[in-house]
Amino acid sequence: MNIAIIGAGAVGLYFGARLQQAGHDVRFLLRRDFDAITRNGLTVTSPTGDFHLPVVKGFRDSGEMGQADLVVVALKTFDNGTLPDLLRPLLHPDTALLTIQNGLGNEELLAEHFGAACVLGGVAIIGSNRGEPGFVHHKALGSIRLGEYGGGLSERAEHLAALFRAAHVPCEAVADLRRIRWEKLVWNIPFNGLCALANRTPGHFLAHPATHSLVRDLMAEVIAGANAQGLHEPIPAGEFIEENVERTVQHTSTYRPSMMIDRLEGRPLELDAIYRIPLEHAARQGVRMVRVEMLHALLAAGEPASPEE
Amino acid sequence: MNIAIIGAGAVGLYFGARLQQAGHDVRFLLRRDFDAITRNGLTVTSPTGDFHLPVVKGFRDSGEMGQADLVVVALKTFDNGTLPDLLRPLLHPDTALLTIQNGLGNEELLAEHFGAACVLGGVAIIGSNRGEPGFVHHKALGSIRLGEYGGGLSERAEHLAALFRAAHVPCEAVADLRRIRWEKLVWNIPFNGLCALANRTPGHFLAHPATHSLVRDLMAEVIAGANAQGLHEPIPAGEFIEENVERTVQHTSTYRPSMMIDRLEGRPLELDAIYRIPLEHAARQGVRMVRVEMLHALLAAGEPASPEE
Repeated sequence: MNIAIIGAGAVGLYFGARLQQAGHDVRFLLRRDFDAITRNGLTVTSPTGDFHLPVVKGFRDSGEMGQADLVVVALKTFDNGTLPDLLRPLLHPDTALLTIQNGLGNEELLAEHFGAACVLGGVAIIGSNRGEPGFVHHKALGSIRLGEYGGGLSERAEHLAALFRAAHVPCEAVADLRRIRWEKLVWNIPFNGLCALANRTPGHFLAHPATHSLVRDLMAEVIAGANAQGLHEPIPAGEFIEENVERTVQHTSTYRPSMMIDRLEGRPLELDAIYRIPLEHAARQGVRMVRVEMLHALLAAGEPASPEE
Repeated sequence: MNIAIIGAGAVGLYFGARLQQAGHDVRFLLRRDFDAITRNGLTVTSPTGDFHLPVVKGFRDSGEMGQADLVVVALKTFDNGTLPDLLRPLLHPDTALLTIQNGLGNEELLAEHFGAACVLGGVAIIGSNRGEPGFVHHKALGSIRLGEYGGGLSERAEHLAALFRAAHVPCEAVADLRRIRWEKLVWNIPFNGLCALANRTPGHFLAHPATHSLVRDLMAEVIAGANAQGLHEPIPAGEFIEENVERTVQHTSTYRPSMMIDRLEGRPLELDAIYRIPLEHAARQGVRMVRVEMLHALLAAGEPASPEE
């Protein structure tokens, strides 16, 4: 299959590399890593075995990539303004557009520009980071759940899930994309924001009784917001919070959420996708997520001044 | 009048200096400034005129200060554990104990150890800081409102108010001490915490629409908590928030609240007096101040890690 990867951060590079490793014709839109990757290929380190792709098709301009059967969008959402122009040259009438970006609003944006029919969304659960140019480090997990923007379990979604599974990416097609988007927000909304705000990893907030309660209260607000969206099946609050807290304590207490890294590295934060749009969706259904709103406000007001200022 | 000042920060030193300037026999319990003040006296710089007190009675040990007719308590509340032992040697049967510390819980502590009858509370509105040892800089305002812990407008309170006024300290006695304590919290709860958290002054939060709303929401929560206490007269929410915001924009947008300074200087924060106890008082009357609780949790979880960690 002819596949274009748009957004060559740690997530896009990793999944693209897996698809190429599985034999697909993969083309990457590259920025920072263009020289290194087109010259020396792409190296993936992974707990399941390192591998090297000596020849990788890299492009600086999506207009030179040709049309693709599948476009995987893994761009940071604060660059979404550039997406329509980037994607336009890649599309033929049957192209599937799969966004695995964070948060809400991404499928809507694609649907608005290219029609709802071609759009799918995926939720990636992965710990990975970029090393020096030409290297991506896969640290943990690495699965995707995906579904049709229009809802329902389609043959196309099942086919794509099988394609990822054949490429060593655990993948499941689901009927209710909105539910998996909101499920991920139950973790992302508390921890991306808190960790970015205090430059601390999740374990810090779970170790202090006051912020431990706050994390659970934030999760409960997000679940209330989610369940107001008319999901096929509501998220069971008590059980789902317990699972999320437990899994974080066990596996990701020292993990640095993407927003924490974005702030440390001086990038914009994905506030629209992870906070503003979910707040709007909840409010539209009459749910005010008060603590989420406060966390968003504290993040939106900018970084703390350094003690010297 | 024989007056003891316990707590020789910028607030205690300033009001003590005014009382001595007015002719009272004032004794100061000193720590950092003991050597400088007992050797060279105390200098006050003030927009209403600088003055110098060449001879000041300073003590390192409250056991050597003798009994006082009035004890003014201006200690940071995180040192409240030491208060009972510090105060015991100063009291005779008619001593008035006036705490002008921040927040809630201070009168209760004094009443518990020395009986409710001797206790008054005061709310100081002042911008001042300590300079090098022996100097205190009075920057702005400098008034006190005070009242009986037991409530009602007493002759004693009126007398003390007159004594402060005669010492160039605008001062008013009030019948409802709880109301003036909560009134000050309407400002202190949002701005002490937000400013400490982000190392930014109040104007920063009022300039950003998201945090501007947050400040007003925090104030509204505090007023709801206050009005649940059965004040003589409830605080009119809309009007009081408007006044507080307006006054902050006009006069204190670049003022550094005490908690911001405490954090910058590595001191503990007055979290019990300004957050924990007010949250408990509100909860006891069935009011949950959700955003205040969240701000408290974020502060209690400790300082942000530095970007290098």
